[in-house]
Amino acid sequence: MTDDIMTRDDVTVLVLAARKRKKLSWETIAAEIGMSPIWTHMMATGMGACPKDKAEILGRLLDLPQAAVEELQECPSKDWNRDIPTDPCIYRLYEIAGVFGPSFKAMVHEMFGDGIMSAIDFDMVVSKVEDPKGDRVKVEMTGKFLPYKKW
Amino acid sequence: MTDDIMTRDDVTVLVLAARKRKKLSWETIAAEIGMSPIWTHMMATGMGACPKDKAEILGRLLDLPQAAVEELQECPSKDWNRDIPTDPCIYRLYEIAGVFGPSFKAMVHEMFGDGIMSAIDFDMVVSKVEDPKGDRVKVEMTGKFLPYKKW
Amino acid sequence: MTDDIMTRDDVTVLVLAARKRKKLSWETIAAEIGMSPIWTHMMATGMGACPKDKAEILGRLLDLPQAAVEELQECPSKDWNRDIPTDPCIYRLYEIAGVFGPSFKAMVHEMFGDGIMSAIDFDMVVSKVEDPKGDRVKVEMTGKFLPYKKW
Amino acid sequence: MTDDIMTRDDVTVLVLAARKRKKLSWETIAAEIGMSPIWTHMMATGMGACPKDKAEILGRLLDLPQAAVEELQECPSKDWNRDIPTDPCIYRLYEIAGVFGPSFKAMVHEMFGDGIMSAIDFDMVVSKVEDPKGDRVKVEMTGKFLPYKKW
Amino acid sequence: MTDDIMTRDDVTVLVLAARKRKKLSWETIAAEIGMSPIWTHMMATGMGACPKDKAEILGRLLDLPQAAVEELQECPSKDWNRDIPTDPCIYRLYEIAGVFGPSFKAMVHEMFGDGIMSAIDFDMVVSKVEDPKGDRVKVEMTGKFLPYKKW
Amino acid sequence: MTDDIMTRDDVTVLVLAARKRKKLSWETIAAEIGMSPIWTHMMATGMGACPKDKAEILGRLLDLPQAAVEELQECPSKDWNRDIPTDPCIYRLYEIAGVFGPSFKAMVHEMFGDGIMSAIDFDMVVSKVEDPKGDRVKVEMTGKFLPYKKW
Amino acid sequence: MTDDIMTRDDVTVLVLAARKRKKLSWETIAAEIGMSPIWTHMMATGMGACPKDKAEILGRLLDLPQAAVEELQECPSKDWNRDIPTDPCIYRLYEIAGVFGPSFKAMVHEMFGDGIMSAIDFDMVVSKVEDPKGDRVKVEMTGKFLPYKKW
Amino acid sequence: MTDDIMTRDDVTVLVLAARKRKKLSWETIAAEIGMSPIWTHMMATGMGACPKDKAEILGRLLDLPQAAVEELQECPSKDWNRDIPTDPCIYRLYEIAGVFGPSFKAMVHEMFGDGIMSAIDFDMVVSKVEDPKGDRVKVEMTGKFLPYKKW
Amino acid sequence: MTDDIMTRDDVTVLVLAARKRKKLSWETIAAEIGMSPIWTHMMATGMGACPKDKAEILGRLLDLPQAAVEELQECPSKDWNRDIPTDPCIYRLYEIAGVFGPSFKAMVHEMFGDGIMSAIDFDMVVSKVEDPKGDRVKVEMTGKFLPYKKW
Amino acid sequence: MTDDIMTRDDVTVLVLAARKRKKLSWETIAAEIGMSPIWTHMMATGMGACPKDKAEILGRLLDLPQAAVEELQECPSKDWNRDIPTDPCIYRLYEIAGVFGPSFKAMVHEMFGDGIMSAIDFDMVVSKVEDPKGDRVKVEMTGKFLPYKKW
Repeated sequence: MTDDIMTRDDVTVLVLAARKRKKLSWETIAAEIGMSPIWTHMMATGMGACPKDKAEILGRLLDLPQAAVEELQECPSKDWNRDIPTDPCIYRLYEIAGVFGPSFKAMVHEMFGDGIMSAIDFDMVVSKVEDPKGDRVKVEMTGKFLPYKKW
Repeated sequence: MTDDIMTRDDVTVLVLAARKRKKLSWETIAAEIGMSPIWTHMMATGMGACPKDKAEILGRLLDLPQAAVEELQECPSKDWNRDIPTDPCIYRLYEIAGVFGPSFKAMVHEMFGDGIMSAIDFDMVVSKVEDPKGDRVKVEMTGKFLPYKKW
Repeated sequence: MTDDIMTRDDVTVLVLAARKRKKLSWETIAAEIGMSPIWTHMMATGMGACPKDKAEILGRLLDLPQAAVEELQECPSKDWNRDIPTDPCIYRLYEIAGVFGPSFKAMVHEMFGDGIMSAIDFDMVVSKVEDPKGDRVKVEMTGKFLPYKKW
Repeated sequence: MTDDIMTRDDVTVLVLAARKRKKLSWETIAAEIGMSPIWTHMMATGMGACPKDKAEILGRLLDLPQAAVEELQECPSKDWNRDIPTDPCIYRLYEIAGVFGPSFKAMVHEMFGDGIMSAIDFDMVVSKVEDPKGDRVKVEMTGKFLPYKKW
Repeated sequence: MTDDIMTRDDVTVLVLAARKRKKLSWETIAAEIGMSPIWTHMMATGMGACPKDKAEILGRLLDLPQAAVEELQECPSKDWNRDIPTDPCIYRLYEIAGVFGPSFKAMVHEMFGDGIMSAIDFDMVVSKVEDPKGDRVKVEMTGKFLPYKKW
Repeated sequence: MTDDIMTRDDVTVLVLAARKRKKLSWETIAAEIGMSPIWTHMMATGMGACPKDKAEILGRLLDLPQAAVEELQECPSKDWNRDIPTDPCIYRLYEIAGVFGPSFKAMVHEMFGDGIMSAIDFDMVVSKVEDPKGDRVKVEMTGKFLPYKKW
Repeated sequence: MTDDIMTRDDVTVLVLAARKRKKLSWETIAAEIGMSPIWTHMMATGMGACPKDKAEILGRLLDLPQAAVEELQECPSKDWNRDIPTDPCIYRLYEIAGVFGPSFKAMVHEMFGDGIMSAIDFDMVVSKVEDPKGDRVKVEMTGKFLPYKKW
Repeated sequence: MTDDIMTRDDVTVLVLAARKRKKLSWETIAAEIGMSPIWTHMMATGMGACPKDKAEILGRLLDLPQAAVEELQECPSKDWNRDIPTDPCIYRLYEIAGVFGPSFKAMVHEMFGDGIMSAIDFDMVVSKVEDPKGDRVKVEMTGKFLPYKKW
Repeated sequence: MTDDIMTRDDVTVLVLAARKRKKLSWETIAAEIGMSPIWTHMMATGMGACPKDKAEILGRLLDLPQAAVEELQECPSKDWNRDIPTDPCIYRLYEIAGVFGPSFKAMVHEMFGDGIMSAIDFDMVVSKVEDPKGDRVKVEMTGKFLPYKKW
Repeated sequence: MTDDIMTRDDVTVLVLAARKRKKLSWETIAAEIGMSPIWTHMMATGMGACPKDKAEILGRLLDLPQAAVEELQECPSKDWNRDIPTDPCIYRLYEIAGVFGPSFKAMVHEMFGDGIMSAIDFDMVVSKVEDPKGDRVKVEMTGKFLPYKKW
């Protein structure tokens, strides 16, 4: 990490450190740039490109150097670390894909025909549902249906 | 597959063949046993145990032999075939866990503290959202938040 | 493989045997159903769902039983056998993804921004280019550009 | 990275930083050295050897030190990072090899006999096709057909 | 590791070094913060979030800087290093899961029905059982039973 | 599976079918041969050798042919199917080994010195603990401590 | 394996059985069809397509049914079983690729520039070299040099 | 890399840098120490131990410090980086082991009986064969035949 | 398994069944053919070729058909099932290679120089050592030292 | 590596450097501390805990700092680098486990019943056997037999 050569990983380190130092929640950061918390976290930790105006607000909010503000606007390599996640919180999403994936697939085909739910033209919201038997995590996702082209 | 020895995989084969022969949708089968389509498909294809009364309705609806009706009530091995799914429709769920998983984790911790969303005390609904720019697949999931025990 | 229970793999075996017995090229089969050879082969060997009218032509052309004609119209599991292909002809496509993939990605982002080329809303044509220094295989693919949604 | 010992990875870092600092597109860089953008990016990021004259132009264009200009002319190790790519944009190429690979293979054999499309005597062009239903990424590749030797 | 940017791994290094320098056992450290040794070790080496008051005691006991005390209160990424453990002491736990896992599963289903023992709402105690034929390691674990939701 | 050639897998199939047909719990079967349920299930499903007298009781209880009674007394290959278990109930044991394994190891070394808990001279009991906040699965294991030999 | 449906694996089984029954060496079989032993074995066990005239000689020599003679002329899937070979005789070739591969690569680049030795336009001969200190296996391979295309 | 502690990897870095700086080919370096190029490259890049006299010549030729000259004489760990090589030039050797390995094995057994070609008592020469249809890479290897001991 | 087509796996099944039916120990079978028990078991279960005279004795001792006696004399594919063994008894050998392997390597190099212990010109004896603190398994192996060739 | 924070890997680097600088063989070092060479190497390179008195002798012999002497007495993580070893000298041990492992297992069960040879209560000696046909490496190992507990 130098003035001249700053990778996306360097930017992520700066973002996380600034957030902790300034005691900001992701909810607050997201509100500042007018986006949802999931998208904001994903982009700010290196999984998406940021529009110029929002990168500049983020830069001011988190005291980022100009090189970081520019790097945030690049299209990053969206690689992830482990083929099979080990962190228990993320593993549960993977287990859901394994246990419920074929049922999800059956319903998509029954409702839409041969194709998939896009993971690109896609959004996700996470919220808390209070419940006397124990609060619940709610996840809502929508993705554009893409039918297989026939040619 | 004999009268005496019937595995859960044998039952799945019988279920899928009967459904095709009788031209029933999963939506219809689910309504017949009073459950949701995702749960019904998951259970009927070997990823869950079926209560006795519902197994009997399913047996009558799909002309299953008694041994199959009983096997449906057993707790199955919920193994899945491929560590990294290759079917494009299921892979997208896996990619979502990879790309958006860390952001999901960050929001869970911000809202609830250290813990996970259960994949067991869990439900999922898939529906269609009509959209002039292209219909969307909507997935809603809720799972009980489980805080890490401290002792 | 019985009259009642026929999997997609059974259908593929029947299709390949009939094609050899009747000495038909994929080019001919594709012309009979009015589609391209790549799509025809992909669908007829279990990687895609076939519209009803084309499945019936295929059934007559290859003397398939009615159960096979119906199975061809289902949405199949598009699983493939080996994470890293070993057949040299297919491996070369994998090597291309490894060696040229990052350059492909750079050009997509430079031309379109953050997003991907769809592998679903996608077509591929393979042809022969005669060349005195040795004939060349030509592959042309187009896929819809999908920009990452921001929300 | 010292004056004396500079690896190909060091050169890639210098190239990417200079390109960002000088705000040059790959299209422009490629035009400067009279080559295609895909080849230029592939070579400049460590997947190919550069002819001496083009390395020198590149050095002047990007202010590279002489050691980098020389390293660019070496035959690099063309290793890639992940057996199964995780970046969604590159993964789609891998999925295409999985889903369409056997059909590609069938057509190559039908048109040419037993052999492969070379991934070495090979070229690739990526372009944009405007389309009212959504612009498309177009990929054109040609590779020399290599018949299996018989001896 | 700087004053400003301290990762959880940095904290673990500091904790282990301080413990060795001060010649404290885990039993003692656990007693100081009023928790069990297993939980204390797990949390202090980066697998759990620490309540504020206990983090402060730990900070004083081990002379940790304030940034480390704060980092201990964050929810960490609970990743582990090797899919298949190689250290013989940990491998034996993995072998137990392989050899006795299906029997454990059969008893859970026989006693409780379809569901799992939680690994989150979970505790573990390790103790020594003296035995003239050779002392034994005793492990006691309890985890909440979670029944699969039906919906 | 013939009269003459019966593998251990064949015996497991016979055991599981007989148990279901006769509606016996593992608790009952274990009591009949005077052993614990975990050991009984493990041995009867192919992970251990059975003493002659207990194999004969089992044979009478489950109507097993003589060849099966003899096969039960052989030392089996204790191979398991999946390096990383996917069944959620067994996976949790694997996750425990990942998340809590290093802490278990630390306590074993602190109490006993350099060595391991044997997974061979080992026993395990699973029981139910009633709890108003939700019943708990209790697992008790003891294994002989084996110190590393020095020579 | 039926009269109508014969896979390449079926043909391999027939070839190996006939060879053993007729006590023919590969050297003899190769001489009969006028090819080298390595190519003959490779093709006859499913790794290459056979010209029509040679397939017919092979059919007469080994009493193969007509369906087998035809199947031998198809372009097979050249898949192999194990990513990392375990048979010690084949593993040594893999070890040679690991230990000597980088040196082989260095010499190819020093002599020819950036490119590869083709494994398709390729031949291999194995022979015995008598030596008083122990006979030696000699392997001679030639493959066309393919330079990377630049465009 | 210090005066006192120099690993074999450090020596390899020094060797490669010196070779480039002094513009020496492997052919020349090999001639200087009176060995073949393949052996010289393999040893000088960390895959073999060097006799004292040759290490000293190499030290003078490449201006290596005394610690490097000594390290070259040690027996190195001959680990290689990737189980399945990705560099196309080395991958082709791996593909040859996969496609032609079983045929190589069949010929070894036919000529010598049960045993292997040693990869230790082994030599390899790479040369260029000029050919109007395209120059060819020639690889000649001999390895001592080792029969399986019977006892 | 037919009269005409018998694989080595078929022979192994016959051998194991005959041994159990005739209640012969490996020690006895080995003595009958005048070889060691380890070699006898290895060869008779498909990991080695058997000399003709010993194959015939084995055939008479175990009532094997003539086709099996001939198959025993072939050089088998010595593939094994699992890259990382899971059976605890075999896993311990693998763990020994992991934990003690580098020390074994250091001693081989210190005593012999750069090279290996052959696993082909190799023998192994297993015996029981009575010991009041618990009987011990003794394994003695010798393998020819093979020095790396220099050329 | 600082005065305060020294890992076991740091100690290994110091030990290996001191041994080379002082030109000591493992045989000599082992004799100095009154232990066998295999155990000494294993412990001194991070695979075992060292008794206090021997650690102090080692410290004086190799001029180790006090922090290293203390670290040698800790119970280390006995992780090894590669699931499937690639160094040819260590790989041969792995191949022995693969090829001869099932025969070793058969003899253990025939002599001792169901159980394993301990890899913890275990010793190993490597020596040289002179032989006119080529010297041999001799490996002698004994491990306590551990019978599976029945409960």
